[in-house]
Amino acid sequence: MKYSDLSRNRLQEMLDELQVQYKEVQSRNLSLDMSRGKPSDEQLNLSMDMLDCVRFKKDLISEDGTDCRNYGLLDGIIECRRLMANLTGTKPENVFMGGNASLNMMYIVISNAWTFGINGGTPWSKLETIKFLCPVPGYDRHFRICEALGIEMISIPMTPQGPDMDEVEKWVTSDPMVKGMWCVPKYSNPDGVTYSDETVRRLAAMKPAAEDFRIFWDNAYIVHHLDFENRDELLNIHAECEKHGNQDMVLELVSTSKMVFPGAGICALITSVHNLTEMKKIMNCELISFDKLNQMRHVRFFHNVHGMEVHMMRHAEIVKPRFDICLEAFRELGELGIAHWTNPRGGYFISLYTLDGCAKRTVELCKEAGVVLTAAGAAFPYGIDPKDSHIRIAPTYPSVEKLKKACEVMVLCAKIAALESMIDK
Amino acid sequence: MKYSDLSRNRLQEMLDELQVQYKEVQSRNLSLDMSRGKPSDEQLNLSMDMLDCVRFKKDLISEDGTDCRNYGLLDGIIECRRLMANLTGTKPENVFMGGNASLNMMYIVISNAWTFGINGGTPWSKLETIKFLCPVPGYDRHFRICEALGIEMISIPMTPQGPDMDEVEKWVTSDPMVKGMWCVPKYSNPDGVTYSDETVRRLAAMKPAAEDFRIFWDNAYIVHHLDFENRDELLNIHAECEKHGNQDMVLELVSTSKMVFPGAGICALITSVHNLTEMKKIMNCELISFDKLNQMRHVRFFHNVHGMEVHMMRHAEIVKPRFDICLEAFRELGELGIAHWTNPRGGYFISLYTLDGCAKRTVELCKEAGVVLTAAGAAFPYGIDPKDSHIRIAPTYPSVEKLKKACEVMVLCAKIAALESMIDK
Repeated sequence: MKYSDLSRNRLQEMLDELQVQYKEVQSRNLSLDMSRGKPSDEQLNLSMDMLDCVRFKKDLISEDGTDCRNYGLLDGIIECRRLMANLTGTKPENVFMGGNASLNMMYIVISNAWTFGINGGTPWSKLETIKFLCPVPGYDRHFRICEALGIEMISIPMTPQGPDMDEVEKWVTSDPMVKGMWCVPKYSNPDGVTYSDETVRRLAAMKPAAEDFRIFWDNAYIVHHLDFENRDELLNIHAECEKHGNQDMVLELVSTSKMVFPGAGICALITSVHNLTEMKKIMNCELISFDKLNQMRHVRFFHNVHGMEVHMMRHAEIVKPRFDICLEAFRELGELGIAHWTNPRGGYFISLYTLDGCAKRTVELCKEAGVVLTAAGAAFPYGIDPKDSHIRIAPTYPSVEKLKKACEVMVLCAKIAALESMIDK
Repeated sequence: MKYSDLSRNRLQEMLDELQVQYKEVQSRNLSLDMSRGKPSDEQLNLSMDMLDCVRFKKDLISEDGTDCRNYGLLDGIIECRRLMANLTGTKPENVFMGGNASLNMMYIVISNAWTFGINGGTPWSKLETIKFLCPVPGYDRHFRICEALGIEMISIPMTPQGPDMDEVEKWVTSDPMVKGMWCVPKYSNPDGVTYSDETVRRLAAMKPAAEDFRIFWDNAYIVHHLDFENRDELLNIHAECEKHGNQDMVLELVSTSKMVFPGAGICALITSVHNLTEMKKIMNCELISFDKLNQMRHVRFFHNVHGMEVHMMRHAEIVKPRFDICLEAFRELGELGIAHWTNPRGGYFISLYTLDGCAKRTVELCKEAGVVLTAAGAAFPYGIDPKDSHIRIAPTYPSVEKLKKACEVMVLCAKIAALESMIDK
């Protein structure tokens, strides 16, 4: 049965029934927060050994003899840079170890471009207009950086292979004011798309109009597979860039916030040696180093990329059932012809697409029934989803039991919003 | 005996003798680094319990129920904000918890002023000239931030009571381009001066020409006494400012880098609620929070300000003998009439003042004999000491035995430099 096959009267009858149900749900006084991609308590418990894996002096001395307890090493300890290099298919000399937040590292890079310019170029603050390409839907905090700085955001539609490359190439190669592009290339936030090999190759081969054009390759979900046997593979963009002499064009970010403890992990910036040499001249004025003890904790806890992978499998065991609960619940919406959604093989989100014009209303109804979702539109520049159809679902944080209740509420609210909209027409 | 009482021939004879000694010292192949204010191994060992004082889930839950392992709390956990408030005589609502480096926090504040302006004012990047008052000698890394940003540095002479307040008031009240002033108000870097009550009162009472004038109150050595019974007391500048409606004028920074582990401590920014409210609007675009687990480690390790004080007494037991070794060694230079120096009651440095024109040469001679000191001039804007007389001595890092050797070398080199200069005239 699809809602679109039913008469207006029948739709009204169904709406009336659902509103009774909704009242009942409201009376349960639920209080569930699914607004952000937060790991659950069960996931956090996986990393407790990290808290005391660095305890004795022997744990604290880096292989080059550096005492990690003292000042020094702007770009981080060699063991940790190697770990991050192995994770990303690069070399330790391509790795700069940052603080506890890759978001902050991206901001730092942009702020330095703003104030000092990139590699001797004009500071972005001195230019009339700066534009960034924003594949949509995307990560709201990327867009918020642009909004704060007054960077003009150009929406680029996402496809199942990644951003629409015809659009991307058109902008990047013709407009010297296009200085940046946000990418979450693997298990993208929020659609869960992994960029195809062709997409990566086309990105790497671009000849940007602006010499200081940079791709922010936010590889936030690099090992965050849900199904390790059927994982997505992402082409190494640095290797592709090198083929075209474009190795300065990509700034890759990785973070352990969603491997260990959010806000107490480490991030790394991965790019060309030339870029890092220039950046370090500036960073050297801004701080002495990020936290090397926390870098060492990661090295002692993970040992190597295999250890990291095994650890992430344990995360998947906890996270995948939560994704399945959502996907199972959404089936009813599909049968009614009022929604479609993504079925990602990794990452932290599902995109739920309601009937056009129904996302905000669905989120509002959920909120009033005690289930807080990410604000509708949040995944779009300036918070405006032109179709008002996208809802970002973050299944990880609630317990399985609570998530089931939340899904029940979401489905109910999506149905009510759809019926209201169809009756209204 | 003073060198100035001796004949030129006698000076030459002495120089010849010392040069023989110098050759002998060079043949020892020493390799001692006293260039930075780094804690010694013994000091670092005092904080080893911090590495595993947060191990179990109960250690991780903040008193307001926040799980410190997960995202959230831009301004930090309440326990840690309270600890920092008690340390600084303020309230938790005045405290913003930063990352591992107060230097970085100062840069962030200035960078945000640069890009966004302060509390709605014109972004500093849009102004023709920005000037900062720099009490000299001062902290080289403060000056380096100014140099990187092209901020004009106005040298203000230090007196035993703090910066020359007549000069400070003249600049701050008359020149709207004076937007900032660097202060290390307690056991100043490098002179070890604590600002007198009158200095603090005069600073607090100023009516700056620029509404967005800010004092960077870098209270880096707030509990870093050498002699706890005869400690310096610093007036609470926030309380003084409030009397004049100037509570937005001061940004205080404290850091635990030199209490626990340099680079793995935490810092705090302490200022008015109004300032923090405005700052957080911007910071909220730049990151989610700093490392709350490390904040919790500090709370569990120190318990409270008394715990912090007891811990710092242990540091003093290690650090004071090192200061005494330097002071004892320098006596010979005093007797020869070729140097004077500071005798601080806390902090990390001694200022050694050679005869005019002899600092660079002394540092160079030391380096060639295997003892690396802070570059002469480093404590002055643009690295230029107009008298070429100041050397910053950092006694903490070497072992007692090595420090004695280093002092021997320093004294020898200071004598050679003095003799060379006197003979040359």
